[in-house]
Amino acid sequence: MTDQYLFVVIMLSVTVFLSIVSVLYALILLKRLNRIKVEHEKINAIASYIKEGAVAFMKRQYKVMFIVVLIVSVILTLIGFIPSLKGAEGIGYRSSITFLVGASFSGLAGFIGMLAAVKANYKTTDQARLHGMSKAIKTSFTGGSILGLTVVGLSLFGLTFLFLVFYTLYGGYKSNVHEQYIALSHAIHIVTGYGLGASLIALFGRVGGGIFTKAADVGADLVGKVESNIPEDDPRNPAVIADNVGDNVGDIAGMGSDLTESYIGTLISALTLGLYAFVSISPEIILNDSSAITSTMFSGIVKTVLFPLMIATIGVVSTIISIMIMRNRTWKDPQKALNKATYLNTLFMIVTTFLISMLLFEGALALKLFLTIVVGLFVGIGIGFIAEYYTSDKYKYVLNIVEQSKTGGATNVISGFSVGMKSTFITVMLLVSGILLAYLFTQDIYGIALAAVGMLSTAGMTISVDAYGPIVDNAGGIAEMSHLDEQVRNITDHLDSVGNTTAAIAKGFCIGSAALTSIGLFFAYEKATNLTASGVDILKPGVVIGVFIGAMLPYLFSSLVINSVGKAAHLMIEEVRLQYKNDPGILKGTSLPDYKKCVDISTQAALKEMIFPALIAILSPIIAGLLLGAQGLGGLLIGGLVSSMMLAIFMANSGGAWDNAKKYIEQGYEGGKGTDLHKATVIGDTVGDPLKDTAGPSMDILIKLMSIVSLMIAPILIQIEPLLKFLFK
Amino acid sequence: MTDQYLFVVIMLSVTVFLSIVSVLYALILLKRLNRIKVEHEKINAIASYIKEGAVAFMKRQYKVMFIVVLIVSVILTLIGFIPSLKGAEGIGYRSSITFLVGASFSGLAGFIGMLAAVKANYKTTDQARLHGMSKAIKTSFTGGSILGLTVVGLSLFGLTFLFLVFYTLYGGYKSNVHEQYIALSHAIHIVTGYGLGASLIALFGRVGGGIFTKAADVGADLVGKVESNIPEDDPRNPAVIADNVGDNVGDIAGMGSDLTESYIGTLISALTLGLYAFVSISPEIILNDSSAITSTMFSGIVKTVLFPLMIATIGVVSTIISIMIMRNRTWKDPQKALNKATYLNTLFMIVTTFLISMLLFEGALALKLFLTIVVGLFVGIGIGFIAEYYTSDKYKYVLNIVEQSKTGGATNVISGFSVGMKSTFITVMLLVSGILLAYLFTQDIYGIALAAVGMLSTAGMTISVDAYGPIVDNAGGIAEMSHLDEQVRNITDHLDSVGNTTAAIAKGFCIGSAALTSIGLFFAYEKATNLTASGVDILKPGVVIGVFIGAMLPYLFSSLVINSVGKAAHLMIEEVRLQYKNDPGILKGTSLPDYKKCVDISTQAALKEMIFPALIAILSPIIAGLLLGAQGLGGLLIGGLVSSMMLAIFMANSGGAWDNAKKYIEQGYEGGKGTDLHKATVIGDTVGDPLKDTAGPSMDILIKLMSIVSLMIAPILIQIEPLLKFLFK
Repeated sequence: MTDQYLFVVIMLSVTVFLSIVSVLYALILLKRLNRIKVEHEKINAIASYIKEGAVAFMKRQYKVMFIVVLIVSVILTLIGFIPSLKGAEGIGYRSSITFLVGASFSGLAGFIGMLAAVKANYKTTDQARLHGMSKAIKTSFTGGSILGLTVVGLSLFGLTFLFLVFYTLYGGYKSNVHEQYIALSHAIHIVTGYGLGASLIALFGRVGGGIFTKAADVGADLVGKVESNIPEDDPRNPAVIADNVGDNVGDIAGMGSDLTESYIGTLISALTLGLYAFVSISPEIILNDSSAITSTMFSGIVKTVLFPLMIATIGVVSTIISIMIMRNRTWKDPQKALNKATYLNTLFMIVTTFLISMLLFEGALALKLFLTIVVGLFVGIGIGFIAEYYTSDKYKYVLNIVEQSKTGGATNVISGFSVGMKSTFITVMLLVSGILLAYLFTQDIYGIALAAVGMLSTAGMTISVDAYGPIVDNAGGIAEMSHLDEQVRNITDHLDSVGNTTAAIAKGFCIGSAALTSIGLFFAYEKATNLTASGVDILKPGVVIGVFIGAMLPYLFSSLVINSVGKAAHLMIEEVRLQYKNDPGILKGTSLPDYKKCVDISTQAALKEMIFPALIAILSPIIAGLLLGAQGLGGLLIGGLVSSMMLAIFMANSGGAWDNAKKYIEQGYEGGKGTDLHKATVIGDTVGDPLKDTAGPSMDILIKLMSIVSLMIAPILIQIEPLLKFLFK
Repeated sequence: MTDQYLFVVIMLSVTVFLSIVSVLYALILLKRLNRIKVEHEKINAIASYIKEGAVAFMKRQYKVMFIVVLIVSVILTLIGFIPSLKGAEGIGYRSSITFLVGASFSGLAGFIGMLAAVKANYKTTDQARLHGMSKAIKTSFTGGSILGLTVVGLSLFGLTFLFLVFYTLYGGYKSNVHEQYIALSHAIHIVTGYGLGASLIALFGRVGGGIFTKAADVGADLVGKVESNIPEDDPRNPAVIADNVGDNVGDIAGMGSDLTESYIGTLISALTLGLYAFVSISPEIILNDSSAITSTMFSGIVKTVLFPLMIATIGVVSTIISIMIMRNRTWKDPQKALNKATYLNTLFMIVTTFLISMLLFEGALALKLFLTIVVGLFVGIGIGFIAEYYTSDKYKYVLNIVEQSKTGGATNVISGFSVGMKSTFITVMLLVSGILLAYLFTQDIYGIALAAVGMLSTAGMTISVDAYGPIVDNAGGIAEMSHLDEQVRNITDHLDSVGNTTAAIAKGFCIGSAALTSIGLFFAYEKATNLTASGVDILKPGVVIGVFIGAMLPYLFSSLVINSVGKAAHLMIEEVRLQYKNDPGILKGTSLPDYKKCVDISTQAALKEMIFPALIAILSPIIAGLLLGAQGLGGLLIGGLVSSMMLAIFMANSGGAWDNAKKYIEQGYEGGKGTDLHKATVIGDTVGDPLKDTAGPSMDILIKLMSIVSLMIAPILIQIEPLLKFLFK
């Protein structure tokens, strides 16, 4: 056992330990949440419907996921037995193991987080009723924190633990530097499977959850508000529970799985690129020539590989500390509470990143790496603010939509369309500046992955804050349905209005992190396929074809999921109409609707409708890889990346702006509810629903999944010739 | 004077001669059109308003264009004096000359075509009144033919003539093969300016025309149909003439300039790539080493350069012949007439292309080049059919939108959105297959440019058929406004319904041709910047940044023009309201509204609002070139290309589908006009207006203009270093 190995073991053990602490703290918080008892009968009744629905959906979803995960892991194992691929590391039963662990951990984190959210929402309502604002803030934030802490804790634990195990199994403890290098290289390639596992779960969580929630939402709105003239969140609407369940499975579990995927994907890309960072000799040569690597070189490589994990670790610590501090104070204003927690977390991150950089690296390099992380942190914050700027009624764009809505629904839709498209400009400029600065500081693509790590190091806190939104949204719904006092509803309304802001910021953060993660994975793919020498030359017809198809896929994918929402909403409407017809007592409030049936419809639709889009996401890089080879697939990835990012930004911000234009009117401005103006803004809001909550967020998943599948098949691609190789002459 | 030079002169003279014939035939048709006298007072009155408005707009537009063209030509001349760029051919006063000729010819073709259209529309109405269907078909088609013949005739004449002149000036007649090669190379680079001229005019025609027409259309609809409850095309609506003028300046002059740009751009890219086709020695070496080229090699190069011009020439001939045949028969069904003309033209093209290929080339190569052209022809036809499939009420998608509209405007918008997105799939697959086959046949990117030439060789006929649509649309409007008999209106309605189909096909053709043209120009840019060796490697951060920004620009551009339409429509609505308020006699029909004022508003808005988008299109490649160099600009181009193509397809087909869903209801299905369902479909139709007629078609222009500007500055880029060169390490 060498000193170098000992160093790796100690560093990684610290990470493993602290990530376990994070999970434990989450469980403690969950226990505290459990301790809060609710005695209000109506609240309890509604809460139990929601919980039942959510758990029913999750169970069914996990069953399907289990089968898919099993199939993929069998395939991964079998591929390892193909004789011609024997040399291809990163394929075979070992990848299958990391894949299974990734999928399980990711699934587990989602389940715990969802359970916490489902509990937090009605307890928030009750705390608002009994003790007022401060306790309500704390309860809702606790619910979000459990998700945040579990996600980063479990993700980081699994990744680091597997990495350590495989590094040791591959011989990282040996005294020969060359053997150590090979162990490191193999261990990194093997944990890519872990990322694939998380990605697959995210696909189900985000796309399935997105279809579920919007089918319920659109269905409930159209038949409730429009046809039957009953208010939102009215217990007489059979689809209302499905709608509330949807908030939990879509906005909480879906968002959580999206950021889990980014978090893990970013770390994997940074690990991979860390292996090649600042090394002038080609990896090919190092692997094949045992004298090519010196122990000084290797010690440098180990540091660049460990650095991202260290940053993630201090991210976990700062999240724990910030949450603890936040919980120990009394808050009156939820916005202030969330802001303080975020700022505290960022500040702590900056200080500790500086220290770790100085400790691990020397002089100018330390400073440069520190600055790169800071760039990532600020891009993350900036991208959220841009989203808020384009979608909040505090700024001109939403007010302009309101103005344009005076000539009807069509001009409402057009102006929101235009706002979303415009918002791509500053968002892309910020992202591009981040890439530029990260590269300027480090002069290596490793820097770009590091910036992504910096951005996602705050994932724990970001998820905590983001999950707050749907929790208080639900809390408000429960207050409404339980017919609580206006005073209580004022509290939940106030909590909810802050949730709208955090939702916009969260969406921006998800998109930005998906973009940076995918770029990181794209460069990691380059290294894994040895494309550095040949490059991915856009001037080759095969690459052009790849870029074209890649840019088209997000449109096809969006079209399919939007269509799915429409179909499912239609089924929901028919079910509600049937229930009203069969039992007129429902509308009178004398008999209870069959909530379960509506949850069932959304569940079935979500699981059925996501099969085809899922196949596109998984199979298209594989088919492109076989036909067009590594280069053509590179083209497909970059085309898909930019196309899905633009669509994601456009859809999220158009949707958000329409939503808030409607809410602005509903606050009583310009005549308020019931006016023609209100009706016009409702159209844009409904159009925006599937865009911002189903298709838009699915774009994040699509591109990350395509990237990680490509990275997984990279070892195969370098061993075979593309079928259409004439396109690459 | 060598035999080789004589061969070139003879071939090009044939082209020059036949293109002059095309223009002369157009003038003969114009004279025949002039000979048709209209005695109906009301028709004449309305026609004179439209003509006046159209001419007024064109005059103002041409004044602005004149200034812009002058500025650009001065800049082009001045750049030639920069000492460090002395060696850069394709820059300087010579380019300035070709640029001026390109702009003038393009402008002239647009003006003649518009004049013809403005005359054809009311004469079609009157012919329908006096003589019935057959004469009406002929009159409207004659109007379109004049535009088609003028566009291809003038474009081809100018390009060929300039090419011949500069080839001679540069010494093409000399006996030394190396000097001949240099003359050929310089002449080709110089005529790129001709393409830039056409592109700049197209920018004004398409974007300005698009803003004009939709500002008038949306404004007229919202204040007429919605507020005042008067029917479409009612003379009491002050904006109605502006709306009719808009059809002419947007759908005819705009569409014509768009295809002119594609036509010229494609030929230029094919000429450029013809210079390098099937030559294994790098152009750098040939230019610098006088012994590198043999006369056999050169004779091969001359053939590949001349071939695209020959194809264009037979395209002109076949258009003339097809139009002649078509005019000499009696037609009852306009659809049959247009189809026959198109098929005849395609058949003639295929036969003569085969002959020319066999004449110019030998054996297998001849066959391969022939097949490549045929691929282009069929892609052009196929892409139109796909557009029709997604936007015609004969197929399931539009009927599905109608079904979804039963739950209101929001679901109408969502389903149309989804249809447009889905249509990108097959469209891209067809385009990609075309690229793949063209490359498979020729094993050279020259083949891809050739396929584009094949597609655009039918431009004369395509434009003739496309211009038919807006002409009969206007004819119908004039019949309506003149309160003609129902019998007459039945004829114009029938003509119009066929026009809807041709419009959809035309849009598809414009998009497809823009895509192929831009790919051709992109590869020509590669050759011009000597990028073949280094490639445009997506793995370089600078290229990734270029791709990101490129993909964003179409969104920014779309947002701006959509917004412009909104603003201008708003001004229009205010003007109409003011006129109604000041003179209540207008609505009673006792006094005439001020049509001129409304035309004025659209004119001003169109010219003012297009400045900023125009600057983006022209300046972004220049700025990107300076900051990111030739490679980064390559990234920007490919990102821009795929992003604008996807948006163009999506917007065109969503818009078309919404339009036809509304028209389907208006035909009386599902309860017809006035129902809630109808209102829901009107929303989608209005949303689609600026998408399909302003933003969507602008995408074609944006990407072609960016490509040709890049090609123009290529000689500069290879002489300077990018400012952010650290991104390309």
